[in-house]
Amino acid sequence: MTLLLTNEDVEQVLDMPASLKALEPVYRELATGGAVLRHQSQTYMPGPLPDSSYCLKTVEGGSDSLGVMALRVTSDVLRGRHVEGRFRREKVAAAPGGRFLGLVLLFSLETGELLAIMPDGIIQRLRVGASSALAARHLARTDARIVGLIGAGNQAEAQLRGLACVRNVAHVRVYSPTAGRRTDFATRMSRELGANAAAEDAAVEGRPASAGRPGLALGCRVEAVDSPEDAVRGADIVLAATNSGEPVIGAGWLDPGMHVSFIREIEADNDTLGRADVLAVHTKQGEIQHYTPRGREALADLQRGRGYPWQRYPELADLIGGSSPGRTDPQQITMFMNNFGIGIQFAALGAGAWRECRAHGLGQDIPSDWFLESLQP
Amino acid sequence: MTLLLTNEDVEQVLDMPASLKALEPVYRELATGGAVLRHQSQTYMPGPLPDSSYCLKTVEGGSDSLGVMALRVTSDVLRGRHVEGRFRREKVAAAPGGRFLGLVLLFSLETGELLAIMPDGIIQRLRVGASSALAARHLARTDARIVGLIGAGNQAEAQLRGLACVRNVAHVRVYSPTAGRRTDFATRMSRELGANAAAEDAAVEGRPASAGRPGLALGCRVEAVDSPEDAVRGADIVLAATNSGEPVIGAGWLDPGMHVSFIREIEADNDTLGRADVLAVHTKQGEIQHYTPRGREALADLQRGRGYPWQRYPELADLIGGSSPGRTDPQQITMFMNNFGIGIQFAALGAGAWRECRAHGLGQDIPSDWFLESLQP
Repeated sequence: MTLLLTNEDVEQVLDMPASLKALEPVYRELATGGAVLRHQSQTYMPGPLPDSSYCLKTVEGGSDSLGVMALRVTSDVLRGRHVEGRFRREKVAAAPGGRFLGLVLLFSLETGELLAIMPDGIIQRLRVGASSALAARHLARTDARIVGLIGAGNQAEAQLRGLACVRNVAHVRVYSPTAGRRTDFATRMSRELGANAAAEDAAVEGRPASAGRPGLALGCRVEAVDSPEDAVRGADIVLAATNSGEPVIGAGWLDPGMHVSFIREIEADNDTLGRADVLAVHTKQGEIQHYTPRGREALADLQRGRGYPWQRYPELADLIGGSSPGRTDPQQITMFMNNFGIGIQFAALGAGAWRECRAHGLGQDIPSDWFLESLQP
Repeated sequence: MTLLLTNEDVEQVLDMPASLKALEPVYRELATGGAVLRHQSQTYMPGPLPDSSYCLKTVEGGSDSLGVMALRVTSDVLRGRHVEGRFRREKVAAAPGGRFLGLVLLFSLETGELLAIMPDGIIQRLRVGASSALAARHLARTDARIVGLIGAGNQAEAQLRGLACVRNVAHVRVYSPTAGRRTDFATRMSRELGANAAAEDAAVEGRPASAGRPGLALGCRVEAVDSPEDAVRGADIVLAATNSGEPVIGAGWLDPGMHVSFIREIEADNDTLGRADVLAVHTKQGEIQHYTPRGREALADLQRGRGYPWQRYPELADLIGGSSPGRTDPQQITMFMNNFGIGIQFAALGAGAWRECRAHGLGQDIPSDWFLESLQP
């Protein structure tokens, strides 16, 4: 049988600490040749609305130890929009019921059959937050406590949750262009991290040994600030998690000892990247885009990289596998560009969700036969 | 609703003449910028059997006029095997019930939702045969009647069926290493092409005007021969459709005026390709392979191209779109390398199957909701 899951199913069995635990060994496997990736492609066509694109985004990855190959597919309608003076790209909930299509398909390496179909929403938040956190474990100072956060969406939440698994976060200053969103975020995350920090702390392995953790003892305080500069200046760790179409951080705001983490290339300009003493990337492989001429006119360029030489820098798998040392001095400025998703993230979290949901009787069985054929393809 | 189809459903609504008709305009659209491709990738890992590989193969393509993006996925267990002294790769029916996994997923450009899921078996045979036939229409002599066929599998059948839509095939000489297979093939296809040729002929547009068609009038004769050379020598059109791991045709067997069509790069050596006065390819893009070290040891190399400079030659879309003239002289040796599937084939045939099955009440509706989510991915 093929197991069909919902985000609600996935959410019951996967949280941030479990995600770090599932991902770390697969990055190590990638470093030692037991896992494989087909990097992300984005295939653009003109979309149904003015200034919109349709984009099919796919990425694949498999792991010997997990016994699965994962294919992640998103089928998106995207549009560009000005928000508080900044142009950004947004996904449109164009599917029936105001919904989106994002799927993780898991295939068996042994039989080829489709083991599970699940939405990517929960996994998407967890994987990005967890991989930034794994990078921060190797790149941020162990005594880092003050966080500047640019962005107040779901990915910003996940960045913070992930970081709280690997560092003793005491104080977060959050900025996003819309005042209401940043204050809501501050209230919500103060409550969550203040209450949960101690419990999460105990549950996570590999966290630095504690010796006085004022932030966690008192609960972590999350505060909204009125400019990105206010968020960044004086922070130990800076996290960017935005939809911005422009760089979001000034190179001059950075101090020695900081760790700065981005999700999208466009969030960091070359001056900012130039300040890194240690720069690591999630993947050296740039985006691979395909488009019709009209598809390109619309939104492909907004997602487009600018040819920064990422291939010169170590990948997260190199940090985790040990072939790259990460931070070696508390005065270094370190950076992580969590640029693109890779397939083993979906293999690791998808397989974790599949096994746990199977074990707990969650999800719906549908016939594997629906996806099989007797004709040799 | 998402329409779930079987090969039996697809077979009821798609045949070879319908496939040529569906494909031709989408190649023209590709030539003029209204369609887009993400070329085929093959992601290999070690397989479950000795000398076996697991391979996830995906390819994408979309068309403005069809309003869909297609993703074709095969999840294969492959193994290498010696058959009559030749090493070849075979798909293993490793899934439950001795089955395979090959799917075409169709997405709506308007809403992003999943419109249809169908197996690729019927479409796979039709698309390869139909695209070789479209190439032959531009490359083979209009008076070509004698066909040399190397291979006696499903793809060989489809090559012949396709060709019979565009040329008056009178005599076919088929070779494949196993004697029983080639004689069975000859009996079966003699019956089919002898009986159906006249009816098919009438149904297909664009066929050259008739002036004495002895082959079709008497029925097409398909004869098994004992060597590839016997099949090729003196033929007007040579079709190769094999699983061979080595070249299957000798360069010295070719005469002026022949058209020679291959499906896999390995079927033609450089000497053979060097004899072409006009060479066209299905796609200039070579295969994109990813593998773990052990995945490569197994079977990746068997599928691997040898770096032939395909990018110098016109594509099928250039022939159909008119930017490349095809054959210009009856004495030319023309060749077509139908090297890799491209996504618009699956978009065109998948959309055709979906619409016709929907119109005829074929297939099974399953909830689109299963593949949608309210979380923004």
